[in-house]
Amino acid sequence: MSVNSFGHLFRVTTWGESHGPAIGATVDGCPPGVPVDAEMIQHWLDKRKPGQNKYTTQRREADEVRILSGVFEGVTTGTPVQLLIENTDQRSKDYGDIKDKFRPGHADITYYQKYGIRDYRGGGRSSARETASRVAAGGLAREAIKTLAPNVQISGYMVQMGPHKIDRDAFDAAEIERNPFWVPDAKAAGDWADYLDGLRKSGSSVGAIIEIVARGVPAGLGAPVYGKLDTDLAAAMMSINAVKGVEIGEGMSAAMLTGELNADEIFMGQDGPQYSSNHAGGILGGISTGQDIVVRFAVKPTSSILTTRRTITKDGEETEIITKGRHDPCVGIRAVPVGEAMMACVLLDHMLLHRGQVGENRGKIGPSK
Amino acid sequence: MSVNSFGHLFRVTTWGESHGPAIGATVDGCPPGVPVDAEMIQHWLDKRKPGQNKYTTQRREADEVRILSGVFEGVTTGTPVQLLIENTDQRSKDYGDIKDKFRPGHADITYYQKYGIRDYRGGGRSSARETASRVAAGGLAREAIKTLAPNVQISGYMVQMGPHKIDRDAFDAAEIERNPFWVPDAKAAGDWADYLDGLRKSGSSVGAIIEIVARGVPAGLGAPVYGKLDTDLAAAMMSINAVKGVEIGEGMSAAMLTGELNADEIFMGQDGPQYSSNHAGGILGGISTGQDIVVRFAVKPTSSILTTRRTITKDGEETEIITKGRHDPCVGIRAVPVGEAMMACVLLDHMLLHRGQVGENRGKIGPSK
Amino acid sequence: MSVNSFGHLFRVTTWGESHGPAIGATVDGCPPGVPVDAEMIQHWLDKRKPGQNKYTTQRREADEVRILSGVFEGVTTGTPVQLLIENTDQRSKDYGDIKDKFRPGHADITYYQKYGIRDYRGGGRSSARETASRVAAGGLAREAIKTLAPNVQISGYMVQMGPHKIDRDAFDAAEIERNPFWVPDAKAAGDWADYLDGLRKSGSSVGAIIEIVARGVPAGLGAPVYGKLDTDLAAAMMSINAVKGVEIGEGMSAAMLTGELNADEIFMGQDGPQYSSNHAGGILGGISTGQDIVVRFAVKPTSSILTTRRTITKDGEETEIITKGRHDPCVGIRAVPVGEAMMACVLLDHMLLHRGQVGENRGKIGPSK
Amino acid sequence: MSVNSFGHLFRVTTWGESHGPAIGATVDGCPPGVPVDAEMIQHWLDKRKPGQNKYTTQRREADEVRILSGVFEGVTTGTPVQLLIENTDQRSKDYGDIKDKFRPGHADITYYQKYGIRDYRGGGRSSARETASRVAAGGLAREAIKTLAPNVQISGYMVQMGPHKIDRDAFDAAEIERNPFWVPDAKAAGDWADYLDGLRKSGSSVGAIIEIVARGVPAGLGAPVYGKLDTDLAAAMMSINAVKGVEIGEGMSAAMLTGELNADEIFMGQDGPQYSSNHAGGILGGISTGQDIVVRFAVKPTSSILTTRRTITKDGEETEIITKGRHDPCVGIRAVPVGEAMMACVLLDHMLLHRGQVGENRGKIGPSK
Repeated sequence: MSVNSFGHLFRVTTWGESHGPAIGATVDGCPPGVPVDAEMIQHWLDKRKPGQNKYTTQRREADEVRILSGVFEGVTTGTPVQLLIENTDQRSKDYGDIKDKFRPGHADITYYQKYGIRDYRGGGRSSARETASRVAAGGLAREAIKTLAPNVQISGYMVQMGPHKIDRDAFDAAEIERNPFWVPDAKAAGDWADYLDGLRKSGSSVGAIIEIVARGVPAGLGAPVYGKLDTDLAAAMMSINAVKGVEIGEGMSAAMLTGELNADEIFMGQDGPQYSSNHAGGILGGISTGQDIVVRFAVKPTSSILTTRRTITKDGEETEIITKGRHDPCVGIRAVPVGEAMMACVLLDHMLLHRGQVGENRGKIGPSK
Repeated sequence: MSVNSFGHLFRVTTWGESHGPAIGATVDGCPPGVPVDAEMIQHWLDKRKPGQNKYTTQRREADEVRILSGVFEGVTTGTPVQLLIENTDQRSKDYGDIKDKFRPGHADITYYQKYGIRDYRGGGRSSARETASRVAAGGLAREAIKTLAPNVQISGYMVQMGPHKIDRDAFDAAEIERNPFWVPDAKAAGDWADYLDGLRKSGSSVGAIIEIVARGVPAGLGAPVYGKLDTDLAAAMMSINAVKGVEIGEGMSAAMLTGELNADEIFMGQDGPQYSSNHAGGILGGISTGQDIVVRFAVKPTSSILTTRRTITKDGEETEIITKGRHDPCVGIRAVPVGEAMMACVLLDHMLLHRGQVGENRGKIGPSK
Repeated sequence: MSVNSFGHLFRVTTWGESHGPAIGATVDGCPPGVPVDAEMIQHWLDKRKPGQNKYTTQRREADEVRILSGVFEGVTTGTPVQLLIENTDQRSKDYGDIKDKFRPGHADITYYQKYGIRDYRGGGRSSARETASRVAAGGLAREAIKTLAPNVQISGYMVQMGPHKIDRDAFDAAEIERNPFWVPDAKAAGDWADYLDGLRKSGSSVGAIIEIVARGVPAGLGAPVYGKLDTDLAAAMMSINAVKGVEIGEGMSAAMLTGELNADEIFMGQDGPQYSSNHAGGILGGISTGQDIVVRFAVKPTSSILTTRRTITKDGEETEIITKGRHDPCVGIRAVPVGEAMMACVLLDHMLLHRGQVGENRGKIGPSK
Repeated sequence: MSVNSFGHLFRVTTWGESHGPAIGATVDGCPPGVPVDAEMIQHWLDKRKPGQNKYTTQRREADEVRILSGVFEGVTTGTPVQLLIENTDQRSKDYGDIKDKFRPGHADITYYQKYGIRDYRGGGRSSARETASRVAAGGLAREAIKTLAPNVQISGYMVQMGPHKIDRDAFDAAEIERNPFWVPDAKAAGDWADYLDGLRKSGSSVGAIIEIVARGVPAGLGAPVYGKLDTDLAAAMMSINAVKGVEIGEGMSAAMLTGELNADEIFMGQDGPQYSSNHAGGILGGISTGQDIVVRFAVKPTSSILTTRRTITKDGEETEIITKGRHDPCVGIRAVPVGEAMMACVLLDHMLLHRGQVGENRGKIGPSK
């Protein structure tokens, strides 16, 4: 086992600290013959890159990815793919005043309690910078999925920021790429801009909810009872920095449904079963139904704020802290491409598992010929 | 990898189908020297056992556990512990009329799509009966925890059934064992009884939210970045039948908090850091803080209801279905001991991991001597 | 991880002690749709069963296997298969006099040093009885292989007992089943009977070398660089009780070859590459070539002998020991079906891995059409 | 699972191809607080480095290692350590004429059959260059072992080259570092130099046997029954390029011993049990006894020779091949530091596992106080 790895057959190990020389992902299990180059992966890193607008941290990172192994003559070889991203803007002086104090709501205290090591350079391994490695691995996963299941489409967007939710009736997928919040609702985008501007100016921060949808996923992915597709998705999303909740389909609201309402009725379509609704979020018993896979996760507000909070030092002295570094008023924004990347990795992994375990024509529903 | 296993060092593999001869758990990695016998484990199985009141399925199972290996002269030996439970009340005729039809909202359709096998006997492996194996493994984990960290206390209870939530201000831990819903609120217990009676009589079902709290957990458990304590808890809970959402601490509501509100301020207590609040649910950066670990999960309503729903057969013919078997109006009730068991397994696992990876005196916060 | 498990996708966990109520194998990852029943597995257990002739331990075990899960209506379902074997002849009084003394050359001292537990009942978990679970799992693997690669044939036999080697020029496969030693050489069988009779009467024991060959294995199984087919075979064979060495193809003698002699020259046959020789034992770079897979392993003599040896007690007192129980003069005999079982498990595992990772028509050698 | 990873808690994933931009090792699970810098690891890489004398390949690689993560202020932090080595001398033109032909005895044919990809650049991932990553990881493991068990000493040397064995009676540890073959016998060193000179000039190659000994290893490492110390050592050594056999203690010769000879008698020493001999190679039942751990492995001759051999092309045409690149007449020489590295990794891994699973004072043998 490796606590810095995830996935069963598509196995991603991320490494690197926020202010070390580089970060990256060591990816084992990518199928051979997948056409891929650095640019394809760069595309997704650029989407996540900080400093692109006033709503994300002003740290300036080129986030340029290099493929050091596993790709030859433009295709994957089946051997490990090393994706390396150099850190270029580590201005560690920014973090000087938090060198000995723990930030309330931040992992620096628990890392210290676990390891006895204080890597004060911008959060070290606990920094959201680690998620760049995930996005790179996810970019690779997307290319592999294209060769295995070309109809799959993964799309992430914000559905809530602080108290402000999107209007589901005004859902407009085309809008997602047009605003800095990846929000599928033009009006919300405007309102949220105002709201976040206020927060940013006051040095505050706020949480968010992100939804990731995968369309075109074949039925049969996922494996009972601890290798369930939703189990792996829950783990994948919960492993993202600052995430405190994960939902599949109805999520926590499933508690409020009766059996009649919750049952997605089944019909026979041309290509297999069709459903009247999707309360299940595309997963039953841990296995995909062929419907859209729908996952949501909540991101808490960043702990780096300009308001004074009470805390302690490494030596146990009580004191106060205020964080002046470059931070995100809503880290949830950058969590959108990260969530998409995790979805891509989990889906590819289960596609590989499914091919490994069963024949691909099993369980076809329809009249026997 | 084994999709029917969970845990890193405390590794539980469950096996068995609802209507086969037996079910069980093969547990590897239990530390040696833990005093345990069948009765200690039976205690927890009895808590989960169906048929104890009118609110759970009337299937009558003795659920008697036998320890077939790994225990000698009253203590664990460090070798695998086999926990076996025979199935005694399999009345499979009950399930006859659903032999060829898929239940909307049930996993039988996806199992068939994945495996090409139709185990119509009460859901086969996808049945909630599998959770008895988890409870047995959890019972063993609890005994091991007692020897490693005697102060740990795990407590589960319902906080919501359908639209009805408990009154947090009326929280009374003593009440939990006094009602069939494990609800810590006497008034709610009464109201819910009426509500569920109505549902049961009409052949309907409803969802629920369960909260599991672990007290006395030492700081430092959990490992970045994919072996996080909350990642493993999310996976553990999401792997339980019918669960659609998992929350740690504030959970989905973290989206609504600002950084100021979310920051649990830190003070210096006699035995280490103390916190002003617990929005984090006892986990920061995936590592325990020493506060209460707080997890919630939502269980959807069972798909076995007396109302007719539209569905299809194995051969793709459209039809209708109504489920007449013995079922739970609120499967969430029996999920309480299951959630506790998963918490116990995850905590023990991380205790073993923590001992393996770092010195036990690392990262002590306080004045250097 | 589970130290009592092996295999990647075909994952076998064995459990149980020599003198507990039962032993067994929990097998996860068996493909669905494999026709199997208890009799098919019993066939292989009968081959290994002790007490069948005067050359193996006189412990009388029915070794009757029951399939408790994972098989429905005569085929595997894709869920875990529990194979249970009850212990019936545990006469533990036999072991009374070795309760507090450690046997030189036996694992009871190291188990005690590791676990602090003394399971004196016939070796507990370290007993060769554990290998019955392996044989049961191997029987299941053989049936699965039949459906995936019907041409594969696995055959094990002894090639050396003590100083006596078989005559390779007199190799006669038909002879293997005709003598109690599984030796493919009629003359050797006779000589060995005399030799072993002498040893048995004097209460001595001796080592052996077993060779396992798999024919009809497709090219492409195995994965660089730590999931090599030979790496997994080496681990599988070394994990068998009393094994001290493992060889692939030329094995240790490869040290004596020059590059010219070692190079198996390649020709083009009708169905793919053909080789002039098989020094490689069917594996190059950890991946199968399509030739016979050839593995050998050496088994040390059992430590239970009638000659007095010096030893110590649990309390560190020096003393002497003589072992009077029922033991095998050459445990290597019973290791033959165990080695076959391990070969079957490893091959099936890599067949599943190969299907999972790459297209099945990749790397076909021959003229492009 | 990741087929390019090994180890349980100390988990090493190597990546990179012979002629790509770089190779390296991603190491997860190194305990925190281990003092380490690049120089300490460089020490071991220098030992393995090719081109140091006329007996190893003339490829000139600086083999300079950089630590990109996991170390801060001179100590490990507990997070993944990325060890990167750039490839500088890739002269790929050398390999031009073998671009489309398969070398008999080389993995290029099986890689092609598995992956459908032909990475002709010096063997790609199957090149012995991958072992530099192992040596780097082993260097890190050695530093961690120093902090956990300072008495452990690991020493590797050649005991056989072609038909020439060392004289065990002339064993002189001090000699190992004085000759290019790491042979503990001055006379053998001279003879072997002459022998290998002859082979080198004729463009031939030869195999070898290497022995790795670990002294000062505490009793109790290793875990039954598939996580045995010898099982993991067998896998580790067999995973090294060109290895065809692995032995523990007596190894294959155990077949020739009787029970009386094989039994290492036990006495009581000051610090615990002492043994009259070490046929077991320091391991009983998969668990260390406290004696020297003794492992041997055989390396076959390199397939790159100047003698013409018959082979086929990618398109299945029969042809001849002769390999003119820069190659080692005896790759076994460079396998010595690689075997040491694998021993270090396996021992550290089991030290961490042992700490995780059991109390450190368990199973102490001696008078109860």
